[in-house]
Amino acid sequence: MSDLPILVEVTRGAMVESRHRGSAAVVDGAGRVAFAWGDTAHPVYARSALKPLQALPLVESGAADAFGLGPRELALACGSHHGEAVHVAAVSAWLARIGLGAGDLECGAHPPVDPDAAKALIASGAAPSALHNNCSGKHAGFLATARHLGEPVRNYVAPEHPVQRRVLATLEAMTGCDLSDAPRGTDGCGIPVIGIPLVGLARAMARMGAPQNLPPARAAAARRLLDAMAAEPLMVSGSTGFATALLRAAGDRVRAKPGAEGVYAAALPRLGLGIALKIEDGAARAAEVAMASLLLRHAGLDDAERAAVQALSRPPISNVAGMTVGEIAAAPGF
Amino acid sequence: MSDLPILVEVTRGAMVESRHRGSAAVVDGAGRVAFAWGDTAHPVYARSALKPLQALPLVESGAADAFGLGPRELALACGSHHGEAVHVAAVSAWLARIGLGAGDLECGAHPPVDPDAAKALIASGAAPSALHNNCSGKHAGFLATARHLGEPVRNYVAPEHPVQRRVLATLEAMTGCDLSDAPRGTDGCGIPVIGIPLVGLARAMARMGAPQNLPPARAAAARRLLDAMAAEPLMVSGSTGFATALLRAAGDRVRAKPGAEGVYAAALPRLGLGIALKIEDGAARAAEVAMASLLLRHAGLDDAERAAVQALSRPPISNVAGMTVGEIAAAPGF
Repeated sequence: MSDLPILVEVTRGAMVESRHRGSAAVVDGAGRVAFAWGDTAHPVYARSALKPLQALPLVESGAADAFGLGPRELALACGSHHGEAVHVAAVSAWLARIGLGAGDLECGAHPPVDPDAAKALIASGAAPSALHNNCSGKHAGFLATARHLGEPVRNYVAPEHPVQRRVLATLEAMTGCDLSDAPRGTDGCGIPVIGIPLVGLARAMARMGAPQNLPPARAAAARRLLDAMAAEPLMVSGSTGFATALLRAAGDRVRAKPGAEGVYAAALPRLGLGIALKIEDGAARAAEVAMASLLLRHAGLDDAERAAVQALSRPPISNVAGMTVGEIAAAPGF
Repeated sequence: MSDLPILVEVTRGAMVESRHRGSAAVVDGAGRVAFAWGDTAHPVYARSALKPLQALPLVESGAADAFGLGPRELALACGSHHGEAVHVAAVSAWLARIGLGAGDLECGAHPPVDPDAAKALIASGAAPSALHNNCSGKHAGFLATARHLGEPVRNYVAPEHPVQRRVLATLEAMTGCDLSDAPRGTDGCGIPVIGIPLVGLARAMARMGAPQNLPPARAAAARRLLDAMAAEPLMVSGSTGFATALLRAAGDRVRAKPGAEGVYAAALPRLGLGIALKIEDGAARAAEVAMASLLLRHAGLDDAERAAVQALSRPPISNVAGMTVGEIAAAPGF
C-alpha cells in the first residue's frame, strides 16, 4: 500500500492531535478524472455509499411503480436512516404494501442510530427490530424488487440470489469495471460487498448525475432516485445526520451518501460530476470533512450553500463540559 | 509529518478494508530505546494514558495515606472507568470521605461508557452525573491531593492551579522532557493536555515499572499505583473494557492504560520496560490491537497469558446478524 496524502487533521489546542490519510477522485460525465488524490485505482468496499446505485433495479424493474413508491421510499432505499419513528413507520408501511413484514428483513436488528430514538426505545422497554436497522430501507427495496419479479423473498442477501446478481451487474455497468475477480466479503447488513476501484465508484456517481448516455430506463431511474434524495433529505440519514445536513445545505446541487469505514460518494447533477473518497483508516469524521471540503471547491455552490457547507467542513470538538477545545478540518494542501 | 508505518489492518472477507498507521516505542529502565516504529520524537497528547503518572502526587503527597485510600481508589485514579454502579459508588464514597461531593467534580457529566450501565440509567429516568464521567476517579484524586495540602478545591482543572502545576512537574521529571515550550490544549475532562514526545511517554512508563532509581517516595508511589491496577482491574476500565481484559489476562506482568485518540502506554515491572504508542488517526480499535501485539513479543508472557493476549490481539468483526465477517490484526511487518 503506497503512502497516501493526509486529507484531514484533528486539532486540539496548539497542536494537530490526529491525522487522516486517504484517496479521492472527481470524475466528469465523460468518465475523465478531473482531480485525484492518493491511490484511486485501489479497490474499496463502498459499503452504504453504494445505496443509490443498488437502488437502480428497484426503479428500472418497474417495482417502484407497481407498488406506488414515492420519493420517501426511494430516499429510504438510497439512505442509511437513523431509526427515528418516521423512518420505522415508513419502512413498516412499505413492507405492508408489498405483503411482507419486519420478519422478512434479513439485515438483523440494531438500536437506532439517532441518540434520542435509541433512548426512547430503551425507555419503552422494547427491543430493537430489523426496522431500526439503518439499512432497512435498502432491504425493503430488495424485497420489493424480488416480489415484483416473482423471485424468492427468502435469502435475498445471498450473492447468488437474483436480486444481488442484478445489483452486481448494475455496479459493473455503472462503474465500468469488470468485477468478476474483485475481492468479496459480507457487509454489516449481510449482503455481499465487492472491492471496486475508487475511481470506478466516482465514475458511477458521475453517470448517476449525468445519465444522458445511459439506457433510457436506467437514466430515468437515476434521475428519479437523485430527485427523491433531494426531496426527502430526512430519509437519507436522520435529524442529526451529516448526510441529511448536507442535502439540506446543498441538495439542489449535491446528492451525497456515506458508507461505513470512511467512504463518501456524491453525484453533482448540475455539473455532471461524480466524487468518491475513502479514508484509509475508516473514520467517518474524516470522510465527512473531506467530502464537505471537496464540495466547497468543486460543486459550484452559491453563497448561501457555501456558508452552510463551510460550517459542516470544520466541525468543532467540544469537551464534556461543553467548551470548544479543537476542530476537525481539511489538511493544508488538500 | 513523515509517513508512518502501517501497524494495524482491518480485514473484511478477501480484502484489507482499512489501515491504521502509527508510532511506537519500547524503552528499558535505563531510558534506552529497545525498539521503535515511526516517529517517536513527535509530540503526542497522551490523554488518559497519563493517568498513572498523574496519580503519583496523590500518593507522594501523603494524601492517599491521610484519607485511607486503598487499591480500589488508587486504581480508579489510574483508570478510565465505565460508569458502572460499582465505579459510581466507589467514587461517591471517596468524595464523601474527603468532605466533598459530585458537585465538586469539574470533569462534566456524560453517560456511562458501559452499554448496560447506560441503558439502566436511561431506564431509570435519571440524568448522567459527573460521577459517571470516566475521569471521575482521576478528578477525585486531584481533589483529595488539594484537600490534603490545603489548596483550593475550586478550579483545580486550571493549568495554574497547584494540582496541575504539580502534575506537570511530575511529567517533566518522569519523561525526562523539558515541557516548558510544549504545545498545550484542553482535555475532554477540562484539565490541561501537553504535547510529549512519544519516546518520553515510554520512558516515563519504564520508570514507573523500574522505579529503583527514582527518589524513594516517588518509587514507592509508583509501585503502589501499579500494584493497585493489578489488584483492581475492574476499576481501570470496566466489565467489557479492553484495559480490564488486558489486566486480567496479563496483570502480573503488564500495567497498561489507553488514552483518547489512539494512545496506549504500558509499564512492564518484571522486565523494567515501558511501552508507548500512538495511532496516527486516533482509532482506539487500532491502539488496542497494536498494544496487545507488542505485549505478545515484548512482555515475556507465559503460555496462559500469551493465549489470553493473543485473543485480544485479533478481535473478530461481526455483522449485525452476528456472523463473523472480518478481523482486526497487526499488519504484516509490525
